[in-house]
Amino acid sequence: MCRWLAYSGTPILLESILYRPTHSLIDQSLHAKMGVETTNGDGFGVGWYGADKDTPAVVRDIGPAWSDHNLQEIAGHVRSPLFFAHIRASTGTPVQQTNCHPFRHGRWMWMHNGAIAGFHRLRRDLALAVDPGLYSDIKGSTDSEMMFYLALTLGLEEDPPGAVARMAGLVERTGHQHGVEFPLQMTVAVTDGARLWAFRYSSQKESRSLFYSTRVETLRSLHPDLAFLHEISDETRLIVSEPLGDLPGAWNAVPEGTYGVVQPGEDEMHAFAPVAA
Amino acid sequence: MCRWLAYSGTPILLESILYRPTHSLIDQSLHAKMGVETTNGDGFGVGWYGADKDTPAVVRDIGPAWSDHNLQEIAGHVRSPLFFAHIRASTGTPVQQTNCHPFRHGRWMWMHNGAIAGFHRLRRDLALAVDPGLYSDIKGSTDSEMMFYLALTLGLEEDPPGAVARMAGLVERTGHQHGVEFPLQMTVAVTDGARLWAFRYSSQKESRSLFYSTRVETLRSLHPDLAFLHEISDETRLIVSEPLGDLPGAWNAVPEGTYGVVQPGEDEMHAFAPVAA
Amino acid sequence: MCRWLAYSGTPILLESILYRPTHSLIDQSLHAKMGVETTNGDGFGVGWYGADKDTPAVVRDIGPAWSDHNLQEIAGHVRSPLFFAHIRASTGTPVQQTNCHPFRHGRWMWMHNGAIAGFHRLRRDLALAVDPGLYSDIKGSTDSEMMFYLALTLGLEEDPPGAVARMAGLVERTGHQHGVEFPLQMTVAVTDGARLWAFRYSSQKESRSLFYSTRVETLRSLHPDLAFLHEISDETRLIVSEPLGDLPGAWNAVPEGTYGVVQPGEDEMHAFAPVAA
Amino acid sequence: MCRWLAYSGTPILLESILYRPTHSLIDQSLHAKMGVETTNGDGFGVGWYGADKDTPAVVRDIGPAWSDHNLQEIAGHVRSPLFFAHIRASTGTPVQQTNCHPFRHGRWMWMHNGAIAGFHRLRRDLALAVDPGLYSDIKGSTDSEMMFYLALTLGLEEDPPGAVARMAGLVERTGHQHGVEFPLQMTVAVTDGARLWAFRYSSQKESRSLFYSTRVETLRSLHPDLAFLHEISDETRLIVSEPLGDLPGAWNAVPEGTYGVVQPGEDEMHAFAPVAA
Repeated sequence: MCRWLAYSGTPILLESILYRPTHSLIDQSLHAKMGVETTNGDGFGVGWYGADKDTPAVVRDIGPAWSDHNLQEIAGHVRSPLFFAHIRASTGTPVQQTNCHPFRHGRWMWMHNGAIAGFHRLRRDLALAVDPGLYSDIKGSTDSEMMFYLALTLGLEEDPPGAVARMAGLVERTGHQHGVEFPLQMTVAVTDGARLWAFRYSSQKESRSLFYSTRVETLRSLHPDLAFLHEISDETRLIVSEPLGDLPGAWNAVPEGTYGVVQPGEDEMHAFAPVAA
Repeated sequence: MCRWLAYSGTPILLESILYRPTHSLIDQSLHAKMGVETTNGDGFGVGWYGADKDTPAVVRDIGPAWSDHNLQEIAGHVRSPLFFAHIRASTGTPVQQTNCHPFRHGRWMWMHNGAIAGFHRLRRDLALAVDPGLYSDIKGSTDSEMMFYLALTLGLEEDPPGAVARMAGLVERTGHQHGVEFPLQMTVAVTDGARLWAFRYSSQKESRSLFYSTRVETLRSLHPDLAFLHEISDETRLIVSEPLGDLPGAWNAVPEGTYGVVQPGEDEMHAFAPVAA
Repeated sequence: MCRWLAYSGTPILLESILYRPTHSLIDQSLHAKMGVETTNGDGFGVGWYGADKDTPAVVRDIGPAWSDHNLQEIAGHVRSPLFFAHIRASTGTPVQQTNCHPFRHGRWMWMHNGAIAGFHRLRRDLALAVDPGLYSDIKGSTDSEMMFYLALTLGLEEDPPGAVARMAGLVERTGHQHGVEFPLQMTVAVTDGARLWAFRYSSQKESRSLFYSTRVETLRSLHPDLAFLHEISDETRLIVSEPLGDLPGAWNAVPEGTYGVVQPGEDEMHAFAPVAA
Repeated sequence: MCRWLAYSGTPILLESILYRPTHSLIDQSLHAKMGVETTNGDGFGVGWYGADKDTPAVVRDIGPAWSDHNLQEIAGHVRSPLFFAHIRASTGTPVQQTNCHPFRHGRWMWMHNGAIAGFHRLRRDLALAVDPGLYSDIKGSTDSEMMFYLALTLGLEEDPPGAVARMAGLVERTGHQHGVEFPLQMTVAVTDGARLWAFRYSSQKESRSLFYSTRVETLRSLHPDLAFLHEISDETRLIVSEPLGDLPGAWNAVPEGTYGVVQPGEDEMHAFAPVAA
């Protein structure tokens, strides 16, 4: 479906993560190993927080990431402590900028890998469940953006894990009403610019892959020679659809039905399950 | 806002109408004279009926028409008896293919110049009024496509003038409910591949310009030397946002609050007014 | 590198060949089996001859073919007796329309799969060898277009096989002067709208794959039940980078160092070798 | 033809100059007042120097600037002490990223408004005059990029005013050899990231408009209430194709046949004339 990456930590040039690693996200746009498709060429997006504003910049385009010069220029000159990047393989909705991730609402960003099964049939009922005051802010036609607006409707800005659980519950109930057995498949990342939440869940308990990077201090003791590890803070963390390389001990699978929080201080990991909205 | 053109008659190469006239639609993309904006550079579309299928081909793209090579190639090699062409000046919705005209549903094509005032506020209520079975076929985010799906919901395929009148009534009522004084501004063309309807209406009775071409036999007697007029049938008719040139006697304004029908046999013109849906 | 397809025969809708076969060219844009890369997502083009003009229409765009709506619309409504289609995997030059195949000069079309090795170093010397009167008609920056203009310079319009042989000789000599051991890798199709030539050659004698379809009357006796084979003339012929499906007996490899001519009457196949320009 | 803007001074968000002024460059993309065309919709580009690298970032795209979301995002989040921005109205060459300004070579950036008259005829001779080692770095097909590579060939990196004068001389001589009376029309900006040179010249002595901003300290005394003027350093300077607004005393025409240097310390202005290469 898609591949994504979320970074939080020492401010770095985006290219350090997007282009430099052996199996970088850009490499995954042509040669994904763990996805349903090897090619993720239906658009891309990058969103980053900077020093000047609370709201992130979001740059998205409809061509493949592997040949995009502008993405390369931005990644080579923009430094950020918190950014998202996403490459898209459409599950049917049009290839257009408004369907590319990440999606933004005020300070918040959201990106998704997966799908709502039978979305064509469910779309109207889900749209009706969106807060009428938010409805007209939906710019595109994807299930992913709909999930974001449902989560916003259900309290994302106050309680992200609770709102995502209620969104998942609503999608599953709506799906079941329309005879869809396994309505939801998702790995989701969401952030307000300070904290970062990542979710792995699917109705069928066969979720798309998701990995988080090992604590930097542990990696330093495993690989004392890697200069890069001495340039980033202990708090630096990456969450990715698939590992960016083969560094032993660097990557850990997020368990099925789990969400994690990357934040100042200790990060956390908890069980995730949909709840009735 | 936008400019459009509808042709019905002797099969001709699209370029004869799109590129050749002095003040062709392509010229209007840079230098419109009668529009709110002189520039219509936010995408374009062309839809034509061919010999092989009932459904029209629809080609749309997001760049300006004036520099589009593909449009020029198609126009230079495709011959059709009935085609629509549209150049867009966005009134706020994104520049993407799914927001370009003409819109298609089965055999039907629809294009629009104008706007629903306060659309951002009205959008949800209007969407709810669309037939649930059609809702998920809405691909873009424009007021124009919404008007098409409302008209389809309200009987376009059986009674086009009646359905458009009910659509206009619904839009006005919804607008008034939201405090919009003059909700609708439209010139619309719609066709099923056999007949062609064109509407000029606005809540404020200050509608965008619309013209239809004089009967070919009349033009022949006015301009006996124009070879072109001897190559096209008596039934040939053009409807345009603004005249394609200065040929005396060639263009007639569609009156305010009027619709016309181009069809085999005599064409017709009638008064148009919204009705309660 | 790339994949291409050339059709000559009974006028058909382009989609019959571009989209309908199991392993169609559009399928090959995501899942090529015999290419250096499985993905050919760096633009596409289609060129066809119609009833109105000697010069072909050429439509090209920079996105992947698999998600392009306009290509699908054109293919579903345009009928032609002779057309080219090409999907691109860039070997380094920019993804832009002027670098997409087929290339056109007057009535002539040219498309290519392969590369000139070390083109960056050879480019200037090759450009100098182009007829000064043609130099400024070069619109893009690919080796493929350069090969076309060299062949035009060396007599393509009078003697296509001879001109291509001289072009190949010139490229090899220029390459050797710059220390490139195996300068040329090519399968090329070229047509004037009446006849069609296809070449398979590489300096290293390891050319990209190329296939031609079996004579229609032979296919009919092999597969008497296939209705499609009764709708096309005996003269119908396809040349493709890789077979469009698994029909037994349908596809034959063009031998290494060979060119074929598809023409009214008997088609031909001859040995091909570069000659001194 | 085109419009451009060069900024040097206190690091600011690009949007402060690109979007905020009344008659900003983005406004000029739709409503230029002093250009040959009012519309500059054939692509755009922005290039900026950042804190991390000597080479500037260059982002360019082929749609109109007025509707480009990515440009708006970048301009709203990138801060730079030295940047170029350009909106294009093509004089015939294709609308593609490689034809958009600014052009970059190592640390250097170049942008141009104007044209080489008869460029189609002169193109080959000019290309031959480019240093063979630079020839293959030419990515697009514009006269503007050719001028840049000729200037690089003729010593731009050592002596910018001298190299531009020699380039202008070469273009004029080549034009005259081909019977072009007035070969060159240009306003050009070029920078190495530290200093900035701007040239106004045309063979006919009727050059496109060019303006530079008044010294900040003078503006402060003229407009003591303008807070903005207290936030920028005395060294801040803008050079623009046409004024960004109506502030009395803010803009000064660059005289015909003149170049200016913006640099640490006193800026300079000198007469400019082509010299034999």
